[in-house]
Amino acid sequence: MNNIITPFETAYRLKEHDNFLLITHRRPDGDTIGSAGALAQGLREQGKTAYVLQNPEATPRYARFMSDYLAPDDYKAEYIIAIDTATYDLFPKNAEEYKGSINLCIDHHKSNTLYADHVCLEAERASCGEVVFDILMAMSGSISSITAERLYVALSTDTGCFSFSNTTSNTLYVASLLIEAGAPNKDLNKQLFKTITRGRIKIEGLLTSGLEFHFDDRVAIATITNEMMEIAKADEDDIDNIAALPSSIEGVCVGITIRELTSPTDCKISVRTKAPYDAQVICEKFGGGGHKLAAGATIEKTVDEIKELLMEILGDVI
Amino acid sequence: MNNIITPFETAYRLKEHDNFLLITHRRPDGDTIGSAGALAQGLREQGKTAYVLQNPEATPRYARFMSDYLAPDDYKAEYIIAIDTATYDLFPKNAEEYKGSINLCIDHHKSNTLYADHVCLEAERASCGEVVFDILMAMSGSISSITAERLYVALSTDTGCFSFSNTTSNTLYVASLLIEAGAPNKDLNKQLFKTITRGRIKIEGLLTSGLEFHFDDRVAIATITNEMMEIAKADEDDIDNIAALPSSIEGVCVGITIRELTSPTDCKISVRTKAPYDAQVICEKFGGGGHKLAAGATIEKTVDEIKELLMEILGDVI
Repeated sequence: MNNIITPFETAYRLKEHDNFLLITHRRPDGDTIGSAGALAQGLREQGKTAYVLQNPEATPRYARFMSDYLAPDDYKAEYIIAIDTATYDLFPKNAEEYKGSINLCIDHHKSNTLYADHVCLEAERASCGEVVFDILMAMSGSISSITAERLYVALSTDTGCFSFSNTTSNTLYVASLLIEAGAPNKDLNKQLFKTITRGRIKIEGLLTSGLEFHFDDRVAIATITNEMMEIAKADEDDIDNIAALPSSIEGVCVGITIRELTSPTDCKISVRTKAPYDAQVICEKFGGGGHKLAAGATIEKTVDEIKELLMEILGDVI
Repeated sequence: MNNIITPFETAYRLKEHDNFLLITHRRPDGDTIGSAGALAQGLREQGKTAYVLQNPEATPRYARFMSDYLAPDDYKAEYIIAIDTATYDLFPKNAEEYKGSINLCIDHHKSNTLYADHVCLEAERASCGEVVFDILMAMSGSISSITAERLYVALSTDTGCFSFSNTTSNTLYVASLLIEAGAPNKDLNKQLFKTITRGRIKIEGLLTSGLEFHFDDRVAIATITNEMMEIAKADEDDIDNIAALPSSIEGVCVGITIRELTSPTDCKISVRTKAPYDAQVICEKFGGGGHKLAAGATIEKTVDEIKELLMEILGDVI
């Protein structure tokens, strides 16, 4: 039996219940944190009790201001909601105990395994925030400025400030209504998209000056060593989405980023391609996987050894 | 007498006339070219004759695909429209002859001198494209996919893909309708915002590695010499808006870019500040001007001489 429900039906069910616990996904991002924060806020504005389960993994710097309403240890929830969480694999460690008893999942991933009693799934949406918007509008017909701010973070971070290919007419329409409702888009954009950390600018400079071009400049290979990270004083936040850089260079069809992990013989490659080149095919040769245009692999070899292997593999592909 | 008219009145006037000539502004950008291209397209779809006066200045690479409908030499226009052009100073050289006989100006700049017979001015809009959208919707109630594509270029380039502080609820609302009307936002965003030229990535790398920080890292100074431009094989398009980079670094309140022009003793500085620091005050000391948060000056000194002077001036300001 299909357990997918509409935002209207979801709103009806939320009205019927109280004492909500919201669960965000592993490697939490602006969409899951913003959507959970907005839903908690919206439910509280309806007179409900709502808390967010503290995610044990690191919250990105830009999303920390929304990490409130954290559930106290002795909180007894009546209704458990997983937010933006397509599968059980994406449950953080401390949410394992709730597997099998999720009342509702709110999501926008086509890959959702429909593990919850009910799933409010809008797979054509760019962000889970858009789904939460539909639910809250169905509940009360309006959005407070605090809720709007959180949903704006969800929408804008999941779409790279409306520049990624997942951005739809609906994303922009909802964003325009969020601004009307008081989302401070100027300030948020400055924080989220217009501020470069010292670490980021340094690591980009080092990465850029070490860029290698091959196969008539159709392949660009970037390297990030632990030494570079130390020189740049860069952390994980600083290199967020940096793997998109090599493939964004004009004329490049296959962009590869090789990153040293714990030791010089423990590396990760991230491959981004433009059609018809297949990133997954390249990464499968290293025992990795992913999608056609973005894939990755973890490899127990040095950067130089990986480059050599890449040249062989790419020779067949490009 | 006030000669400002609404988009509705503008639509009425456009319906009454035929044989339009559209004028774009000096240093043409995506907004003036996209708005003119969209209006020409929209007027032609209404059965009108409409041409764009060829702008003698270089069209940015990304806007070249909209440079059609160029007026033949012997074209006799009945109704002349200046697009996104706030003052006569912004008229390109070959449009000087039309000064004094502009029938209509369509604009979004508060600074518009109201030089035309009628001015459709919406100063709260982020882009002229939004004003043209209002006019075309008032004329026919719909937008073709070609017109939508051009207006999307206008809106998105004038707002940095909806990230700049001028972006309003209306900008996003109109953009959502343009996508509904067929604007290929995925492809356009990739071309306009997700493709970095080889020249850009090289010049950014050089600029970044030469960045200087002063006054407890609250001041960042970047330099672009002619030698760097040669090494990077970079052109003017490649350094578009690069002056925004130093001030976007976390913690930096005053970002300064010094650029060598024709000779090592002919430089331009661009200053970007965060409030309360005043870019204009700094640039006025060099005989330049601008706004509170963005100003510039041309200086007949070497990079090193300018840096020395800046240290003195900043000592008073910071």
